[in-house]
Amino acid sequence: MSYVDLGFARVDTNRKQRRGFPEVIFCAGKTPEEVLAISRALLQADGVVLGTRATAAQFEVVHREIPHAKFFERARCLTIEDKPMPKLDGRIAVVCAGTSDLPVAEEAAITLEVFGNNVERICDVGVAGIHRLLVERDRLESCNAVIVVAGMEGALPSAVAGLVSKPIIAVPTSVGYGASFGGIAALLGMLNSCGSGVTVVNIDNGFGAAYAAATINRLAQK
Amino acid sequence: MSYVDLGFARVDTNRKQRRGFPEVIFCAGKTPEEVLAISRALLQADGVVLGTRATAAQFEVVHREIPHAKFFERARCLTIEDKPMPKLDGRIAVVCAGTSDLPVAEEAAITLEVFGNNVERICDVGVAGIHRLLVERDRLESCNAVIVVAGMEGALPSAVAGLVSKPIIAVPTSVGYGASFGGIAALLGMLNSCGSGVTVVNIDNGFGAAYAAATINRLAQK
Amino acid sequence: MSYVDLGFARVDTNRKQRRGFPEVIFCAGKTPEEVLAISRALLQADGVVLGTRATAAQFEVVHREIPHAKFFERARCLTIEDKPMPKLDGRIAVVCAGTSDLPVAEEAAITLEVFGNNVERICDVGVAGIHRLLVERDRLESCNAVIVVAGMEGALPSAVAGLVSKPIIAVPTSVGYGASFGGIAALLGMLNSCGSGVTVVNIDNGFGAAYAAATINRLAQK
Amino acid sequence: MSYVDLGFARVDTNRKQRRGFPEVIFCAGKTPEEVLAISRALLQADGVVLGTRATAAQFEVVHREIPHAKFFERARCLTIEDKPMPKLDGRIAVVCAGTSDLPVAEEAAITLEVFGNNVERICDVGVAGIHRLLVERDRLESCNAVIVVAGMEGALPSAVAGLVSKPIIAVPTSVGYGASFGGIAALLGMLNSCGSGVTVVNIDNGFGAAYAAATINRLAQK
Amino acid sequence: MSYVDLGFARVDTNRKQRRGFPEVIFCAGKTPEEVLAISRALLQADGVVLGTRATAAQFEVVHREIPHAKFFERARCLTIEDKPMPKLDGRIAVVCAGTSDLPVAEEAAITLEVFGNNVERICDVGVAGIHRLLVERDRLESCNAVIVVAGMEGALPSAVAGLVSKPIIAVPTSVGYGASFGGIAALLGMLNSCGSGVTVVNIDNGFGAAYAAATINRLAQK
Amino acid sequence: MSYVDLGFARVDTNRKQRRGFPEVIFCAGKTPEEVLAISRALLQADGVVLGTRATAAQFEVVHREIPHAKFFERARCLTIEDKPMPKLDGRIAVVCAGTSDLPVAEEAAITLEVFGNNVERICDVGVAGIHRLLVERDRLESCNAVIVVAGMEGALPSAVAGLVSKPIIAVPTSVGYGASFGGIAALLGMLNSCGSGVTVVNIDNGFGAAYAAATINRLAQK
Amino acid sequence: MSYVDLGFARVDTNRKQRRGFPEVIFCAGKTPEEVLAISRALLQADGVVLGTRATAAQFEVVHREIPHAKFFERARCLTIEDKPMPKLDGRIAVVCAGTSDLPVAEEAAITLEVFGNNVERICDVGVAGIHRLLVERDRLESCNAVIVVAGMEGALPSAVAGLVSKPIIAVPTSVGYGASFGGIAALLGMLNSCGSGVTVVNIDNGFGAAYAAATINRLAQK
Amino acid sequence: MSYVDLGFARVDTNRKQRRGFPEVIFCAGKTPEEVLAISRALLQADGVVLGTRATAAQFEVVHREIPHAKFFERARCLTIEDKPMPKLDGRIAVVCAGTSDLPVAEEAAITLEVFGNNVERICDVGVAGIHRLLVERDRLESCNAVIVVAGMEGALPSAVAGLVSKPIIAVPTSVGYGASFGGIAALLGMLNSCGSGVTVVNIDNGFGAAYAAATINRLAQK
Repeated sequence: MSYVDLGFARVDTNRKQRRGFPEVIFCAGKTPEEVLAISRALLQADGVVLGTRATAAQFEVVHREIPHAKFFERARCLTIEDKPMPKLDGRIAVVCAGTSDLPVAEEAAITLEVFGNNVERICDVGVAGIHRLLVERDRLESCNAVIVVAGMEGALPSAVAGLVSKPIIAVPTSVGYGASFGGIAALLGMLNSCGSGVTVVNIDNGFGAAYAAATINRLAQK
Repeated sequence: MSYVDLGFARVDTNRKQRRGFPEVIFCAGKTPEEVLAISRALLQADGVVLGTRATAAQFEVVHREIPHAKFFERARCLTIEDKPMPKLDGRIAVVCAGTSDLPVAEEAAITLEVFGNNVERICDVGVAGIHRLLVERDRLESCNAVIVVAGMEGALPSAVAGLVSKPIIAVPTSVGYGASFGGIAALLGMLNSCGSGVTVVNIDNGFGAAYAAATINRLAQK
Repeated sequence: MSYVDLGFARVDTNRKQRRGFPEVIFCAGKTPEEVLAISRALLQADGVVLGTRATAAQFEVVHREIPHAKFFERARCLTIEDKPMPKLDGRIAVVCAGTSDLPVAEEAAITLEVFGNNVERICDVGVAGIHRLLVERDRLESCNAVIVVAGMEGALPSAVAGLVSKPIIAVPTSVGYGASFGGIAALLGMLNSCGSGVTVVNIDNGFGAAYAAATINRLAQK
Repeated sequence: MSYVDLGFARVDTNRKQRRGFPEVIFCAGKTPEEVLAISRALLQADGVVLGTRATAAQFEVVHREIPHAKFFERARCLTIEDKPMPKLDGRIAVVCAGTSDLPVAEEAAITLEVFGNNVERICDVGVAGIHRLLVERDRLESCNAVIVVAGMEGALPSAVAGLVSKPIIAVPTSVGYGASFGGIAALLGMLNSCGSGVTVVNIDNGFGAAYAAATINRLAQK
Repeated sequence: MSYVDLGFARVDTNRKQRRGFPEVIFCAGKTPEEVLAISRALLQADGVVLGTRATAAQFEVVHREIPHAKFFERARCLTIEDKPMPKLDGRIAVVCAGTSDLPVAEEAAITLEVFGNNVERICDVGVAGIHRLLVERDRLESCNAVIVVAGMEGALPSAVAGLVSKPIIAVPTSVGYGASFGGIAALLGMLNSCGSGVTVVNIDNGFGAAYAAATINRLAQK
Repeated sequence: MSYVDLGFARVDTNRKQRRGFPEVIFCAGKTPEEVLAISRALLQADGVVLGTRATAAQFEVVHREIPHAKFFERARCLTIEDKPMPKLDGRIAVVCAGTSDLPVAEEAAITLEVFGNNVERICDVGVAGIHRLLVERDRLESCNAVIVVAGMEGALPSAVAGLVSKPIIAVPTSVGYGASFGGIAALLGMLNSCGSGVTVVNIDNGFGAAYAAATINRLAQK
Repeated sequence: MSYVDLGFARVDTNRKQRRGFPEVIFCAGKTPEEVLAISRALLQADGVVLGTRATAAQFEVVHREIPHAKFFERARCLTIEDKPMPKLDGRIAVVCAGTSDLPVAEEAAITLEVFGNNVERICDVGVAGIHRLLVERDRLESCNAVIVVAGMEGALPSAVAGLVSKPIIAVPTSVGYGASFGGIAALLGMLNSCGSGVTVVNIDNGFGAAYAAATINRLAQK
Repeated sequence: MSYVDLGFARVDTNRKQRRGFPEVIFCAGKTPEEVLAISRALLQADGVVLGTRATAAQFEVVHREIPHAKFFERARCLTIEDKPMPKLDGRIAVVCAGTSDLPVAEEAAITLEVFGNNVERICDVGVAGIHRLLVERDRLESCNAVIVVAGMEGALPSAVAGLVSKPIIAVPTSVGYGASFGGIAALLGMLNSCGSGVTVVNIDNGFGAAYAAATINRLAQK
């Protein structure tokens, strides 16, 4: 049950053993130097670093010291893969309702890929033109799990849930205005989905949905 | 600009002339005797009475004095039609997502019928089994307006809005539990609908939706 | 049931056939290049582009490539009309409570005009000086629908609803401070209007109100 | 700075001297015996008792011991007036939007009368039929203050504020359903009134409005 | 894409084929006769009936006609298993924080069992005595998924998530008082869990969590 | 019942006659040119202009054209007094709980002075050091009305209400952080004040409190 | 790190050693038989039982089997003291704002007494008559901690905090109506108290406040 | 009962005598000059100044005039200690869940130190890796009080409360996103903690927690 004490942080170097994936850095509210120091501790322990909610300024400091670090701007993720996670069979679908939901969908996709999963990206299939979704039914059913990202009224997970038999994880986004209340409307819509078995993560939490889907995909390995 | 002053109420006998439909009694919070007195004033002025949110106890007192009064239990409406409103051409669809939404849908349907409209009732076509809705596309498109009644996540209006070109009025219901918050989830879902042009009324307000639809149907008369 | 797949977006080129109006671009959260690419796909399919919530930066990129594009700053709309929509008979009133509500009212008005409707603009008739509204009664009644835009307590739709027999669509705005809570006070006021038949759209959603009114006006064509 | 200590209550027998009116019993949550004991202490000190939110069960116990106690059922008030408060000149208007608001309006009216004020009751003048209010303009202007009681969207105080020059105190009521949220819609509407100078009390707090109006009326005495 | 139209309901007899599990009856708001009629349609199509949120009165009517129907009082579930679902390998843990959360935990457990899953019940392991949870680490890790049911502050899923590598589905309950706001505190706690990958369902929605876990368990079958 | 129609605004030149005070410009959301144009219309009609929520940029444009316009920075008010309102007898107290509440208190004070009232300013007498308030009891009692401005928990009006017999108008401010929720805590505190007869205006609405107090003071003139 | 597993509950028999006080039974949502079984386990381990939120029906079953069990109706507490906790020096004040807050205050007082503390009860000293509180200053200062129980606006803890130097624990109650929102107003008021160092517990949580105060008092023992 | 009247502020020079600690400056919303003036008044009266929520700009003005003033950037505190408070025996633990919570934890730590307390800082021991906390049990138990600072779901205080017997004060922080709602999730979690006796302060209120803890520590002095 080890950890590395950096004073401002206790890096959980035992996380990978307990949970199957190494600790991930939530970069928001940390100084670039803190992100760098935690990255180094994780690299040494696990060989893989994923930082979410990273800023360009944080990446710049990390990149200066660790040149092979990568930055995914739209996804706001930084990654360092000295010892990449092993590749898993099967695929995870990341579906999003509209173009404006892409940053959250990409955070999910990058997380999945760092964790060794294959990703199917399907974009802009909101219920206002349901035919755009219906043509994708077989592709969705062929995946081991489906992440559905949507803002505004968040109706897409219900529609997807009516079509496929795989686990569905819904991610509400803060896309919208007025009575979307920063994603509350989508969140409540998803929690009350008439599509049985939809589970939900926090608003804009693409990372969390990917983490759950990766955990599921691991179970599906034969 | 006349009215009848009953002391506890000023019955707006000019309403029909200004707005096209007579005043309707919101029975909640009134004594049975008050409902009866207002009914009499409206009968004398307009020949038609519609009471919404009526209880059996209120109806009993009215019925004793005015035996041809009718009560619609599920819709919680009482009606007296000495001079029925003229019949209008065309039809209004009243669509509901689930069986539990029926009381609100029936309030809408009874209101529409008292106001002279033909009603198409379509029940239990929630998005969890979207094929049940898709088969009704032509019937919906053939109506002059579509009222969509749904609780829980309130996704049905968005799905309907993706299919037809007619005005769509969404009614959130208080059906649900937990984070449906008495209909807030459905209300927010409908207000944020990605289906352009959906308009919304208060939670459980079948009457208001019907009033708006009847106003629209009047415009559609050739 | 066609669409054009741009990767980041699936442009619904079948929308106009199903719903009567072409897809409209919700520009918020899109890059200027994405707005341009969607504009081109819509121009080719429908000959008409309307972008709402557009910024000057988005317009600039579009305008460089499509010089006859127009920008309406207060309404935050961009339009391109190669094949303008056919003109409809009758008029739609756009009423606003105060000067500060103008951006939302103009979004409604521009949308209506792109969709072929004639617009009556009536500004600053809030209930604090009800005589300013009462003098407009006949003009309002002569329209096929009335859009009422108001912030703060959102009382204007109730007052209008007491005067005219036409469909009334209320648009709450985020104008106000303190306990207006970004438009919640106006939204709740309108949802609870004692003026029967008032329907409501999202806070600041001038576009949605116009879309609904245009749908209604189409029904009113003889 | 005296008080009477009953153990479960410290009756503020100095209140009348400091504030001009004696302490009033908020009966909710008290046993009938506690209401009786406090009533006796107040009778001895001030000669006048007003209990608000009183139940029939509480009144019964008080009435058995103090036979000249009175109960106002709709207003939920009990009163005992051994030494009635002196009568004031001028009148206070108590205006209510609808019949269902009467319990709150009556609580205000009874409080005003116990405190020595003349009351003008004006009922059911909601904005859905504004002509019913406009005919009362002169009567309202002739009063020293106007209490406006309304539920649902709470628009009536704004309309009244547009017409008269006297202090206006708005009382939101819990009348309504759905998105009225137990009076929140009316409360927010009144707090955001575009009618300058409207002040507001708690939902259903007819007593508080009357107290404030009585304080104002005292200033108006010549 | 079939369904059976009962007028008040369209029973989705195609659900099992699309989603792997037959339609489940949400009994709230339905008459006993409606529950019976839907049960019969589902029995004929799928051979298995699960009704959630069932009352004793609903069960009584069903039981009179279908004597082998069973009722689980604490779980509020009724079941009829003419053709039981096939048994799956592996186990699902249902963990609950306190005794008062048992009704929700039992709804999850009964649903899992009807869907062919083995259930491990672990009760009263809230974080106030974390040693009661720590001793169960191995048992939890040996399951294919973990459902965690908790009210009040809903901290248990975070603690579980720190210990095991399997998918974790959190169910907030309405257990608590005051600022638990009917389960909002637990819901928000779970959505914001620092334990990566926790997914959440609606307040008191034991059924939904079980449905998701059963979908996951199906993937884990070799 | 006159008004001046500027297109973007209908200036209510009849306001002073109906309500006793001229229309006041709510500057938020208006262009400087619009503020200037409305100012000119009001100057011509009433000879007095008060603009609230004014910015330096708005004032600059007005001041260039009307050099005797004044700007009160902390109060965010602009004034032009060609024909000052007549001076009233008596005084109004403006009490504030802390230094940070001064902008709202000053908005109230400037409004009162433009409307002809004498103002007693009493600052920083919050309940954390109640002796600072108790020494002011006589000064407060000598005024015709007391405006109490407070943020955070908003307890000051209750304390003042325990001491004096004059009308008390409470103004919650947005001063605070965290669970003050932009003034909601103070607003709710004031609405639930155990000090009978406290009336409340919107968060940060110093203007509204002053308007009400000025209306009251007019009644107190002998 | 022991516990007793009753199946439906794991009684934490190690609690007293870790935390200084034995586990307390939160009776809400438990059957009488469950309360009895847990009571027996606790009696055997610790010799002292305290049950909060207990009903008469629960007590009756416990009392039948354990005749020396006691029930405190207003406090909703049941106690069994085979081996009473040792008596502590010093006193804890339990102050309440009004008579209606007594049930919560008594829950605090009974808890304190079972835990070995001396209690000073001070009732009905709300800020509307601040002199009733000021006379108690010395008595409050002489205690080791002060629990302040208040509903409505919850201003009393701020006033107490201005007077004494001892730890102050505030308990908001659900006493009030309308915008008290079941205790939210009081809760927010206390969290935003300008009286430095006030800490707060859940609405109506007299037990929690007493637990904290008892923990503090233990520190104060010489 | 003295104070110094600066016009814009009444500095409570009697505070230290009544409450044991001098008045502390809440710098938010004050001009640098006001902070300086209050600092001087407090220096003269008490010899110690603590300013919270201070900005660099405020500090700069103070520092220019009082060169030995100190600024703690992360804690946003300024201090001047001419006559430092006497040192107390014992220690207070300040525990924080994650690195992002450090500003709030530091505000608590600086406040404690200015008030004469020894501080144990323990950082990044969130429940996602509970072993990082368990190793600190003895250190926590050895302190006289424990302040627990956490954002997101705020579960840490419950975990700490399960381990130690000392008073625990929980500070929710605004760290998080989406449904953390600026700290509401953490606040509600802490108010509903199953760890008996946890008391709570406002979101981000490190100062308040420290004040309470210092008050407790004073009681613990032998």
